[in-house]
Amino acid sequence: MMRNPWKTLSSRAVYQNRWLRVREDEVVRPDGGPGIYGVVEIRPSVGVLAINGKGEVAIAGQWRYALGRYSYEIVRGGSEEGERDLLAVAQRELREEAGYEAREWALLGSVDVCNGVTTDVQHLFVAHELTFVGTNQDPFEEIHTEWRPFREAIRMVLDGEITEVCSVAAILKYQAVRVSSQSIE
Amino acid sequence: MMRNPWKTLSSRAVYQNRWLRVREDEVVRPDGGPGIYGVVEIRPSVGVLAINGKGEVAIAGQWRYALGRYSYEIVRGGSEEGERDLLAVAQRELREEAGYEAREWALLGSVDVCNGVTTDVQHLFVAHELTFVGTNQDPFEEIHTEWRPFREAIRMVLDGEITEVCSVAAILKYQAVRVSSQSIE
Repeated sequence: MMRNPWKTLSSRAVYQNRWLRVREDEVVRPDGGPGIYGVVEIRPSVGVLAINGKGEVAIAGQWRYALGRYSYEIVRGGSEEGERDLLAVAQRELREEAGYEAREWALLGSVDVCNGVTTDVQHLFVAHELTFVGTNQDPFEEIHTEWRPFREAIRMVLDGEITEVCSVAAILKYQAVRVSSQSIE
Repeated sequence: MMRNPWKTLSSRAVYQNRWLRVREDEVVRPDGGPGIYGVVEIRPSVGVLAINGKGEVAIAGQWRYALGRYSYEIVRGGSEEGERDLLAVAQRELREEAGYEAREWALLGSVDVCNGVTTDVQHLFVAHELTFVGTNQDPFEEIHTEWRPFREAIRMVLDGEITEVCSVAAILKYQAVRVSSQSIE
């Protein structure tokens, strides 16, 4: 039952840029009929829940071009071609977007994003013990980082002010883990 | 600060199939330099947290072709061309994937999925008061729905057995809303 019910007959690249590659596969569908499957190949990405000594979390605001609106998110970014060390990517993104280094890193888990279409797997990290080192933003981005009490970040999720789904997942998962570890103690 | 710092100079479709359309825009970046932006246009989608009278939630398992592995998720699906009523889409997906109709529907909020690349906005619903009416699956899919206690769904999220990000967000958001409404009462 957990086997792959699809067969891939052929595969061709139909579009490519620096950040993604689109391919169209000729397939046999689960029901045995012929079909195509368009896959958007995106390299693994990271999300960083950076929490300072006051219990505040870094919320990065930026205009999201694809969506056409402003978005409040945790620190996020993609890996470069060939990068395998996702912790190093997370460290770079925290430095570039927020200007901080962290001494304590923990993995909160990975999530699959838009899995009907893309290959995007986002690795969610929690960063503590922060030191300000200055920002160095990617020229493609214009990001404003603010620090919000963690409780306020949860409120922003519940009130629909934070809607970027990896940020929603990271904030609520961190809270759920804290609550469940408190109830065990 | 919340204005659009990008300028779009031109836009051309580079790939299209029944489910998505990829366009490449020629842009002026936030830093004023020239660039391109590849956008994957995906129609609005829905996620349904279907909860039966025993407090069990419908978990739909299926092989995800793009990811190349099996995935446990809430009931999810996309809208068709021109469909504007996302509740109707949610109702159809619940019927097709799980074989149920629901008398009570609530909106849990919307999330932006892979917003650096796609236009996908997933509308998350909670469905209660369920009646079995029989399944009618899309031939493109092979989905096995199981009913799990809600507490077990939370455990699957925290243990990394559920990694599809909209499912993670919906399960944890529903739980957070329940917890916060209990603490108010």
